[in-house]
Amino acid sequence: MRILIVNVNTTASMTKAIGDSARAVASPGTDIIELTPDFGADSCEGNFESYLAAMAVMDKVIRYPEPFDAVIQAGYGEHGREGLQELLDVPVVDITEAAASTAQFLGHKYSVVTTLDRAVPLIEDRLKLAGLTDRLASVRASGLGVLELESDPQRAVAAIVEQSRIAVEQDKAEVICLGCGGMAELEEQVRTATGVPIVDGVRAAVTIAESLVRMGLSTSKVRTYAPPRPKVLSGWPISAELITK
Amino acid sequence: MRILIVNVNTTASMTKAIGDSARAVASPGTDIIELTPDFGADSCEGNFESYLAAMAVMDKVIRYPEPFDAVIQAGYGEHGREGLQELLDVPVVDITEAAASTAQFLGHKYSVVTTLDRAVPLIEDRLKLAGLTDRLASVRASGLGVLELESDPQRAVAAIVEQSRIAVEQDKAEVICLGCGGMAELEEQVRTATGVPIVDGVRAAVTIAESLVRMGLSTSKVRTYAPPRPKVLSGWPISAELITK
Amino acid sequence: MRILIVNVNTTASMTKAIGDSARAVASPGTDIIELTPDFGADSCEGNFESYLAAMAVMDKVIRYPEPFDAVIQAGYGEHGREGLQELLDVPVVDITEAAASTAQFLGHKYSVVTTLDRAVPLIEDRLKLAGLTDRLASVRASGLGVLELESDPQRAVAAIVEQSRIAVEQDKAEVICLGCGGMAELEEQVRTATGVPIVDGVRAAVTIAESLVRMGLSTSKVRTYAPPRPKVLSGWPISAELITK
Amino acid sequence: MRILIVNVNTTASMTKAIGDSARAVASPGTDIIELTPDFGADSCEGNFESYLAAMAVMDKVIRYPEPFDAVIQAGYGEHGREGLQELLDVPVVDITEAAASTAQFLGHKYSVVTTLDRAVPLIEDRLKLAGLTDRLASVRASGLGVLELESDPQRAVAAIVEQSRIAVEQDKAEVICLGCGGMAELEEQVRTATGVPIVDGVRAAVTIAESLVRMGLSTSKVRTYAPPRPKVLSGWPISAELITK
Amino acid sequence: MRILIVNVNTTASMTKAIGDSARAVASPGTDIIELTPDFGADSCEGNFESYLAAMAVMDKVIRYPEPFDAVIQAGYGEHGREGLQELLDVPVVDITEAAASTAQFLGHKYSVVTTLDRAVPLIEDRLKLAGLTDRLASVRASGLGVLELESDPQRAVAAIVEQSRIAVEQDKAEVICLGCGGMAELEEQVRTATGVPIVDGVRAAVTIAESLVRMGLSTSKVRTYAPPRPKVLSGWPISAELITK
Amino acid sequence: MRILIVNVNTTASMTKAIGDSARAVASPGTDIIELTPDFGADSCEGNFESYLAAMAVMDKVIRYPEPFDAVIQAGYGEHGREGLQELLDVPVVDITEAAASTAQFLGHKYSVVTTLDRAVPLIEDRLKLAGLTDRLASVRASGLGVLELESDPQRAVAAIVEQSRIAVEQDKAEVICLGCGGMAELEEQVRTATGVPIVDGVRAAVTIAESLVRMGLSTSKVRTYAPPRPKVLSGWPISAELITK
Repeated sequence: MRILIVNVNTTASMTKAIGDSARAVASPGTDIIELTPDFGADSCEGNFESYLAAMAVMDKVIRYPEPFDAVIQAGYGEHGREGLQELLDVPVVDITEAAASTAQFLGHKYSVVTTLDRAVPLIEDRLKLAGLTDRLASVRASGLGVLELESDPQRAVAAIVEQSRIAVEQDKAEVICLGCGGMAELEEQVRTATGVPIVDGVRAAVTIAESLVRMGLSTSKVRTYAPPRPKVLSGWPISAELITK
Repeated sequence: MRILIVNVNTTASMTKAIGDSARAVASPGTDIIELTPDFGADSCEGNFESYLAAMAVMDKVIRYPEPFDAVIQAGYGEHGREGLQELLDVPVVDITEAAASTAQFLGHKYSVVTTLDRAVPLIEDRLKLAGLTDRLASVRASGLGVLELESDPQRAVAAIVEQSRIAVEQDKAEVICLGCGGMAELEEQVRTATGVPIVDGVRAAVTIAESLVRMGLSTSKVRTYAPPRPKVLSGWPISAELITK
Repeated sequence: MRILIVNVNTTASMTKAIGDSARAVASPGTDIIELTPDFGADSCEGNFESYLAAMAVMDKVIRYPEPFDAVIQAGYGEHGREGLQELLDVPVVDITEAAASTAQFLGHKYSVVTTLDRAVPLIEDRLKLAGLTDRLASVRASGLGVLELESDPQRAVAAIVEQSRIAVEQDKAEVICLGCGGMAELEEQVRTATGVPIVDGVRAAVTIAESLVRMGLSTSKVRTYAPPRPKVLSGWPISAELITK
Repeated sequence: MRILIVNVNTTASMTKAIGDSARAVASPGTDIIELTPDFGADSCEGNFESYLAAMAVMDKVIRYPEPFDAVIQAGYGEHGREGLQELLDVPVVDITEAAASTAQFLGHKYSVVTTLDRAVPLIEDRLKLAGLTDRLASVRASGLGVLELESDPQRAVAAIVEQSRIAVEQDKAEVICLGCGGMAELEEQVRTATGVPIVDGVRAAVTIAESLVRMGLSTSKVRTYAPPRPKVLSGWPISAELITK
Repeated sequence: MRILIVNVNTTASMTKAIGDSARAVASPGTDIIELTPDFGADSCEGNFESYLAAMAVMDKVIRYPEPFDAVIQAGYGEHGREGLQELLDVPVVDITEAAASTAQFLGHKYSVVTTLDRAVPLIEDRLKLAGLTDRLASVRASGLGVLELESDPQRAVAAIVEQSRIAVEQDKAEVICLGCGGMAELEEQVRTATGVPIVDGVRAAVTIAESLVRMGLSTSKVRTYAPPRPKVLSGWPISAELITK
Repeated sequence: MRILIVNVNTTASMTKAIGDSARAVASPGTDIIELTPDFGADSCEGNFESYLAAMAVMDKVIRYPEPFDAVIQAGYGEHGREGLQELLDVPVVDITEAAASTAQFLGHKYSVVTTLDRAVPLIEDRLKLAGLTDRLASVRASGLGVLELESDPQRAVAAIVEQSRIAVEQDKAEVICLGCGGMAELEEQVRTATGVPIVDGVRAAVTIAESLVRMGLSTSKVRTYAPPRPKVLSGWPISAELITK
């Protein structure tokens, strides 16, 4: 089975980290192919960048030259999953939804802890559309950006751990979804500090994508995610033109 | 006051109709500038096309060379409004939300009647995020596409009128928002058939945009719609590269 | 265009302030007529007074001797708007709903900041019926009554500013609706302290009333707001008898 | 124990029927005093009449010359209960809420069946504010007014029975609240036709009012229903002036 | 009238306290029979014990040898009420729901204050299924178990009073439902500390059960609570076999 | 990895079918152990039987003599999952929730189609507590019991297919969860008739249980599902006494 997992930003090192994380949980025989969009922002922290990422991810996936069995969109709180579902016949899994769905099997309520405060409404909106907010205790932000996560990891981790602790103690979360990645030690530290299960979206998405494929299930095509009707398109695929110019 | 009103598809005749409709209700002294995206689909009837339109609209607006006071995104149930709000300092009004907001001043419950069944979930999702579903009686589709609306207008109108009538009689809507445009007689016929007020999104959006400007109000920048953080972007603006290639 | 704007209490100075505020944003050619009820309380801070105001407002409006194009009910969180809609053919706009509707175009979530704590449930109830609570972050009270607002303005303003700041920082409001009026400097101080757009209900209502009239739209009469059925009424209009006694 | 039960309209024969119905279920030692407002409409079928009734009921109750232990407002879907709660120290029970609360002990979902279609939104709004809609299957109307209920009882009953049957079979109601009164045989016929328990609001309210008194419980005065603050009132009580003029 | 009131745990002293509390509010002529399950836990503080209690309560009730008119399940936040409703023709009242229903007649919002934090989600879940959460301000726990309530009453009461105070001041509850029993002074102290009405579930349930019987109402049998279909059962009733072994 | 999958009724042939279905999708290396409760009903079609099944399932699982890695409760809409989560350290997956969670990755809305009408509220209640109703289009019943499913399969299948078709066409479901099992051809026929993906709860649960184990995740123990506190239990485990009597 081949699963494409697509980063939403253009930072190759993050793509690699995502791919490694995915492979760590993939079943034997599952081939994980990580992809970096050909255009967009080097990190997604808002609606504009998220919409740009949505197109860049679709653009990257539809130009992938080999057959594949499922696609994972690896951005937390990002736009675009519905578009991919229209364009493809194989299952599409978003990591925000995968993490939340998984968390709901583990505790009465869950929280998401992310980096920037401005990402909170995006994550809340994606979870609202996904119908996954009834048991959402809170979405909390550490207040530190992705950059700081790399430049001053100790301080960044401390802030994430602190928000996770508040989510458990005050918001009554029993599970934490980490809405940011790239640090192996982060998960362990949050678990130790809070005593609750920590769900990583990438890993959750890999298991769900594999499960759907194994059960022979894919996106329903009767209505919302039917293939686009034939029509005149200009400027698509975007990268084809950008790259060949 | 100058208001940009941006079509979401690439069909120039529809842009012109939108502009004319906007001008019909604009105050004296308001300058309506209608814009057609430089890339995308010739009609938007699904998530993929809607995401493409989101980028095309942003792309068009940020390259507009003159100052302006407000922007209207003239697509029913389309993505993208939040991105524009981040990129701009002036108010941004989406016609789906403008119509629903206006309808709520006119009756206890309202319905939206649109063309294709597959557009229904998109409209529902936009209204859900906008917090405008508590008094939504239904979103109904005539089952006929935008094409048919032009090729066989009589049949298309009859189908829209029929769904509007059902919305009033069965779903208990007291106001109808028409989620499709381009036909002057449509509005009159639906009003006659149902006896309820008919709200046109373009006109509603023009009055709201003017009102916000008049009150000196614009998008809050403290959190969700703060300007994008400075970062490395590639392939943006998209059209700049597409056009100059 | 003539718009009646009706105060809900019997304090003439507040009626005048409301009228002035309305005129400040009205279009050229709009005639603002402010009205004071002929009976009721000198300020409305609870359900009993609000119900009394509801009748006093209807009573005042139906006896207005000249034609008019729209009516604004200028009380925050008060009863009565639905009754006016039944009695009149022209649009009726409540300032609580007008402010909230407007705020939703400006930020992801909004809060209302008012004077007395006991008014909070009234405002929440009106917004719940209006279907405008999905994006309501909070309704907060300064704890000071309307009286204090006049007798010790500095302390009153400080309390309002403080609650607005908490609404933005803790409740994550991105827009503030001021659920109290009468002080020009209040709005400016809250904006400065919070950095978010401040919506005034009276001004929002004037632009919405004008917009509805301009679009030729008025209250739907097919069901909830149909004219009262002919029946035997006693003691109505109330003031006719009160005044002529 | 003395319980005041107040009709919302001025039709004395309906007041008497309400009183008789209340007495039929009252405990030994409970004194039921039925009251007719001194002004208002001879039947309440809309918001205007309902607001007028709200004031007329308060007016009647505060002028009642003897002590009493509880008040029941006997109108289906009418305004005013919150105002009475502010004015009085004794418990106030609305029959719409009493019926729904009682129905919830008897089945998984309940429906309300009333006379006129235009009363449906009023009932829905009262139940929404009362927090009693989660298990509400539907509010249905027979389409016949109170008048017809008396002039052509057989046809009226048939229409009510038919809507009750649909509520059970299609809407999956397991209990019916009758949102109209005055006919002894109605209840029996609906029960026979549907096989579900039928809840009468007046009787439910009597038992609840008695229960609250027996437990020594009354309206909380800490916030929403605190007594009105002292202030200048004109035209109140309304009837005092109307009557003495 | 004979009402069975069944404790959910096996501690006889608590059963007696429940019976005494019930009798204190019962009408003359009502015979209160308190019952202790024949198996289960000596206190219920979690789902496992609650499910065990559900069966033990049903088991006890169906083996009661005399006729009875209603059943009260006297556990806060426990499972089982729906099963009893299927097995019996007489009304079944759960004290959690009885308290919440009663509280809603007394204030705009109510809170439940209980002992252990782990009981909070159970109570929330029962109230959610009962459709009684719209006006629920909070469910709060003192953090002390039932044991402590008896071993160190002063400290336990202080903790309950403190949480009740927070519920009123911060969560804006206007009524408190005590989700724990067995101490006469507790209710008085919470009322004094908060100034709000205190609802006791057992007493509320007795008045509701009596009321239903008086009105001739019982559980609807058309769907959810129809009698179990005839089928092969083994191990039922459980206690019959346990006891006779 | 060893997964216990527990039937909720005492019919051994259904246990075997469940085990076979689970094995069909289990990964190589996963050992599926199907279990039949030692007491209870031969089919679960209501709350009483469901509560009895809850205890019987817990009873069976805690007496299982070998180590295991996860437990699946294989009943549609049944009670008990929360109790198992308290008693065990390994993940617990309920098939009702597993099916719904999986369906949400495949379409905009999903429906559940089951056998008896009386099971509908049970399934709705379980999904409500699980926070999985926002995207639930409907729960529909064929009206035929489990018995008929075996005695007259052709008629039973036709009824299920018909309700599935209505769910897709009228309720706008894009995915169907089959809330009944035991017939290989059923799934195929529903898929053919509706054109939408069909989710089987048992298979979905197996993939989810395996995924949780693979990620090293299990039930959070900080609050709701903490192990039962030490206390005096009588009659537990139930079957130990029943069997040895």
